[in-house]
Amino acid sequence: MKPLALGLLASLFISAAHAEPTATGDLGLVIERATGTVVLVDQSDRAALARIEGLGDLSHASLVYSPDERFAYVFGRDGGLTKVDIVTRTIANRVVQAGNAIGGAISDDGKLVAVSNYEPGGVRIFDADTLEMVADIPTDSKTIGLVDAPGRRFVFTMWDTGETWIADMSGAEPRITRIENMGDRPYDALITANGRTYITGLFGEDGLTALDLWSDTPEPIRVLPGYGRGQEEMPVYKMPHLEGWALTGSEFVLPAVGHHEVLWVDAATLTETGRTQTHGQPVFAMARPDGRQVWVNFAHPLNDTIQVIDTVTKEIIHEFKPGPAVLHMEFTPRGHEVWLSVRDAGKIMIYDTQTFEKLGEIDADSPSGIFFTARAHRTGL
Amino acid sequence: MKPLALGLLASLFISAAHAEPTATGDLGLVIERATGTVVLVDQSDRAALARIEGLGDLSHASLVYSPDERFAYVFGRDGGLTKVDIVTRTIANRVVQAGNAIGGAISDDGKLVAVSNYEPGGVRIFDADTLEMVADIPTDSKTIGLVDAPGRRFVFTMWDTGETWIADMSGAEPRITRIENMGDRPYDALITANGRTYITGLFGEDGLTALDLWSDTPEPIRVLPGYGRGQEEMPVYKMPHLEGWALTGSEFVLPAVGHHEVLWVDAATLTETGRTQTHGQPVFAMARPDGRQVWVNFAHPLNDTIQVIDTVTKEIIHEFKPGPAVLHMEFTPRGHEVWLSVRDAGKIMIYDTQTFEKLGEIDADSPSGIFFTARAHRTGL
Repeated sequence: MKPLALGLLASLFISAAHAEPTATGDLGLVIERATGTVVLVDQSDRAALARIEGLGDLSHASLVYSPDERFAYVFGRDGGLTKVDIVTRTIANRVVQAGNAIGGAISDDGKLVAVSNYEPGGVRIFDADTLEMVADIPTDSKTIGLVDAPGRRFVFTMWDTGETWIADMSGAEPRITRIENMGDRPYDALITANGRTYITGLFGEDGLTALDLWSDTPEPIRVLPGYGRGQEEMPVYKMPHLEGWALTGSEFVLPAVGHHEVLWVDAATLTETGRTQTHGQPVFAMARPDGRQVWVNFAHPLNDTIQVIDTVTKEIIHEFKPGPAVLHMEFTPRGHEVWLSVRDAGKIMIYDTQTFEKLGEIDADSPSGIFFTARAHRTGL
Repeated sequence: MKPLALGLLASLFISAAHAEPTATGDLGLVIERATGTVVLVDQSDRAALARIEGLGDLSHASLVYSPDERFAYVFGRDGGLTKVDIVTRTIANRVVQAGNAIGGAISDDGKLVAVSNYEPGGVRIFDADTLEMVADIPTDSKTIGLVDAPGRRFVFTMWDTGETWIADMSGAEPRITRIENMGDRPYDALITANGRTYITGLFGEDGLTALDLWSDTPEPIRVLPGYGRGQEEMPVYKMPHLEGWALTGSEFVLPAVGHHEVLWVDAATLTETGRTQTHGQPVFAMARPDGRQVWVNFAHPLNDTIQVIDTVTKEIIHEFKPGPAVLHMEFTPRGHEVWLSVRDAGKIMIYDTQTFEKLGEIDADSPSGIFFTARAHRTGL
């Protein structure tokens, strides 16, 4: 056998080794926030498959997936945009596109990846294939709450000027719609799973501001005037993540700001329908995919605890302490399991959502966000 | 080099050749009803990748996917249950499990595949890995409307006796709950996307019967008493598919029986809220994933036409004729495209859902159902 053929054989072994598990529907990535690494995990086997290194500062990182569930686009705090190939388990490409970034999104057709930047403020849009920049949209403001919307659109909001912009990328050039008067210092936003309603949280005042993206001329709609730190000015250990809003059929559940409670909100009218007292200041309130349960984690120093709320009775039906610093939760797409990042235990812990039994754990170094590939098929995640 | 090693090399070539496109998130299978074959398609490339043969009688076939989006379980009319590996593009396993079957489902954990049978009547449940039978549930009736529900449950209904059974497979043995008096000759059923509400259509009387699966003791709830063939006894060319019910935020849209219209139904109360006149007797009324549009196809002889309804105005905003015998529609998971089976043109046709522009077509032999792998992550499909 000639050396060339031997080399070919070796490379076939390598590609075959990596090819084996590449049906990618049940995989996921876990951010290791301290080390600039991600761990590739397999839901079905409840196992870690590989660690991928060299992603820069992941202290406040998130990611989105390509439609084929092969590539993850990881948005680092340092402005790094890293394209990870979970089939070959390597970094396919990486650019440092700004000095300080906060989150990103992928267009509904999977062709464009957008990143929201603090330094310089604005949004930059990249070809998902090559990571070449295709649009630079400066905003003269820190830019937050970047989401994708149907019709190859991105929506994002300005901390400094209180404007929301809609960038329609369906044509040759970006077409920008600017909506003013969204409120004082918007700090985060979400889009509902159907891509219709965009809602910003405000740091500078109580209440939230919604936009109906199905309207030809969306106007700011003030909702939930009591939502926020309120009169008592409780110390806020951590502003809750708005992406943590949970839709449970006809109601949203959202973490209160500062207070030890979650709020129930009518999804159609965006008016408050009730409150449930909780163990601490909620950070994420996440609905199991069927909407029957909401799982809540809490801000420091009560972040060792999880509470589970039944959405019919609105009562807490289960409480337990997975360990120190539960930072994130991710449900399997059909909701039979939930995976928790327990940062200071260095573990991902896995639970049955019907019995609450612990099913397994996976070692990880300071794990934070858990992202299953099923997100590829959803809007606004 | 020894023969064994040569054989290994050959098999590595084969597996490496098939390994390339195995990020499976954007793949799908199209049923070729006349030839017992399926075509593997790639959404991103709008292309056919392979044809897989030998699946038996697919004249009324459907399929479900494993959680990793690697295996499809194809339910044939002849009782065949075929496990297709879309990574290697081969049949991984096949059993003929009954004489005459009608649909199947996969448990939320992906471990169990259930098949609904006419001959002999009942449901049989198989290990998803090996296709060995793990439970045989005879029902003394043709069995229809089989769906999966959260908590490793299957729900199905008896044509002859009008009972619905819930099989809870979370323990060592199936635990069966029987609900009587669902109505006269249930012919099909659906479960809502959140897995809460199960609704049967009735051949023998007007109206529908719903069950609240979140109740500890579900009771039949009669809804929409005017739904059905009604007083006029219109000729019904094809009973509409209940799986075609579309949820558009707070309303369902469903095809009328016999009449040229779709009905709008409040999702919370299951009462009628309106009707939209259509081109013919609707077969499927399917919501784009964001719920902004509903696409409708029609029964013979008007089955060359598609109408698109705006869900805000409830008016028809677009109508076109893709070709003879449009049998099925499947949206990309985030809704930017729709794929149509045009049986008598021998084509899958692909359209942009924003511009209605035709984007491409793929040859297929008498195509019927189109199933994208994203279904793996949803309940009740």
